[in-house]
Amino acid sequence: MTKKRILTGDRPTGQMHLGHYVGTLENRIRLQDEYECFFIVADLHTLTTQPEKDSIGQIKENIMQMMLDYLAVGIDPEESTIFLQSAVRETYELNLIFEMLVTVPRMERVPSLKEMAQAANLERMPFGLLGYPILQAADILLPRANLVPVGRDNEAHVEVTREIARRFNNLYGEVFPIPDVMIGNVPTLVGTDGQAKMSKSLNNSIFLADDTETVDKKVRGMFTDPNRVSADIPGRVEGNPVFIYHDAFNPDLEEVEDLKARYSKGKVGDVEVKQKLTKAINDFLDPIRERRVTFEKDMKQVEEYLIEGTKRMRKEAEETMGLVRDAMGMYRPM
Amino acid sequence: MTKKRILTGDRPTGQMHLGHYVGTLENRIRLQDEYECFFIVADLHTLTTQPEKDSIGQIKENIMQMMLDYLAVGIDPEESTIFLQSAVRETYELNLIFEMLVTVPRMERVPSLKEMAQAANLERMPFGLLGYPILQAADILLPRANLVPVGRDNEAHVEVTREIARRFNNLYGEVFPIPDVMIGNVPTLVGTDGQAKMSKSLNNSIFLADDTETVDKKVRGMFTDPNRVSADIPGRVEGNPVFIYHDAFNPDLEEVEDLKARYSKGKVGDVEVKQKLTKAINDFLDPIRERRVTFEKDMKQVEEYLIEGTKRMRKEAEETMGLVRDAMGMYRPM
Repeated sequence: MTKKRILTGDRPTGQMHLGHYVGTLENRIRLQDEYECFFIVADLHTLTTQPEKDSIGQIKENIMQMMLDYLAVGIDPEESTIFLQSAVRETYELNLIFEMLVTVPRMERVPSLKEMAQAANLERMPFGLLGYPILQAADILLPRANLVPVGRDNEAHVEVTREIARRFNNLYGEVFPIPDVMIGNVPTLVGTDGQAKMSKSLNNSIFLADDTETVDKKVRGMFTDPNRVSADIPGRVEGNPVFIYHDAFNPDLEEVEDLKARYSKGKVGDVEVKQKLTKAINDFLDPIRERRVTFEKDMKQVEEYLIEGTKRMRKEAEETMGLVRDAMGMYRPM
Repeated sequence: MTKKRILTGDRPTGQMHLGHYVGTLENRIRLQDEYECFFIVADLHTLTTQPEKDSIGQIKENIMQMMLDYLAVGIDPEESTIFLQSAVRETYELNLIFEMLVTVPRMERVPSLKEMAQAANLERMPFGLLGYPILQAADILLPRANLVPVGRDNEAHVEVTREIARRFNNLYGEVFPIPDVMIGNVPTLVGTDGQAKMSKSLNNSIFLADDTETVDKKVRGMFTDPNRVSADIPGRVEGNPVFIYHDAFNPDLEEVEDLKARYSKGKVGDVEVKQKLTKAINDFLDPIRERRVTFEKDMKQVEEYLIEGTKRMRKEAEETMGLVRDAMGMYRPM
């Protein structure tokens, strides 16, 4: 029996952080043996909100940083296919065909797109941004993926993919699987500011490549329970970022339970809680940092992994587009 | 000095009629020496309103009929480039990039799209139809055309192309010319029913491939002045389809003037006016029919003209997309 296929990936926004790890990377490492994984480096998606030349100019460096993070956390580029979206020509082709199979009012009902436009300070919706879930459908269906691990904010996008796959199959015959969504256990990690989810642009992130001192500094500055002005006041554990991080990264469950118990009774200072968190995060990051350093020594090879993956994806994409054109009965004289 | 470039073309809807001749074909033959002409067989455009499998299944036959008409009226496939839109991969690529450079409200202001949706009985606007003028922009700008001969109903589409070209050049540097519109002298020909412009779907067309008897029959059935119930009643020449056709296809200006004069005085019957029109149209169509029969004998060669043209267009398209990617500074590892 062949393995089921997964497609997931990232916009190349640069270095990845603990939020990425908890939200998706951890999941990917777990999945890569059991499934045939396709990881898309979605550079075309960045154009939907940032078509400016200087944003485009940063993409290569961002991709290289992201590749290093992928490799450092343990994604195996031989086992899984990491590929560059813009270098797969069939992406553009399938996207255009799919644009014929979905209506404008349907796209206007996708909730996240308006937020994305606002977040990017775009007064008017770019046409490409309204079509972003269609492009995602092309990404997902080109390798004919069965499963799409996404955060809750992207669930509605995968629903568009499912509708497009069904509509295509109904019009032209069975070509695409109807992919299922796979929601992670810890879909989002709060930032060090405790205010919003960890995000590079909010300056509340601990990066996978941060060194021990940086982690120490960021944890020391972390938001905790604001009502707890001294160590002897009972504190709130629930929803407290320091304990969310302990739960996520401290493997010493006994220590975590002890800290929580003492915290809620006003028997432990923030300093101790944070020092132990710093240690836990640094212990967690150490092997990742080590592998990162090793890969960093041969950036040509890192790029080669992307090229090889893209070539593998191209073969899949060609096959799929052949099936698509045959099913549609397109005239192809050459 | 290099010749200026023209892009124009047709959806492959099948055999072409006198309306096409007057509206565009005549113009193209005149232009093909002076300009470098690209004639697009816009098969992807048909998907915007008719994505159904049976419509797609007719495309090849429609293209072959259209090619025969092109060749029969005197378009020279060696001098001009006739190409198949869907077989030029850069079309899809440039289309996606352009989608990032134009807003949804801008597209919603293009007047003809809602009419197209209604005409195709589409209750909700397909995403691809709202993006149709963007795809046209890709068609026009891929060969970096300077001039676009269009009917008045397509003027607003070319305006979108001009805006996209300007926006691209502003963001990334000068790559595209800002193409100008070229409006034909006789933009539309009324149908034989006198009600609407000649259109295959309205069953009011005289096709370039119609034989003499068919032309005779269609002209005999033509709408004239409805108030003129007998030949001795003075008739209206102005706006009368029979005289519009005489003006367009009868080279004997004296005869036309004489008929008009007698018609407005009630001194000529419809039969005479129509017999003379039939003769004029058949004289006009005879050499076209002859050439059509010759080309029809070697349909492989007809297809070869399309393949050769598409290859030439591909070279242009590759060059343009290279310029586009360089200007944007896209990361291209392979």
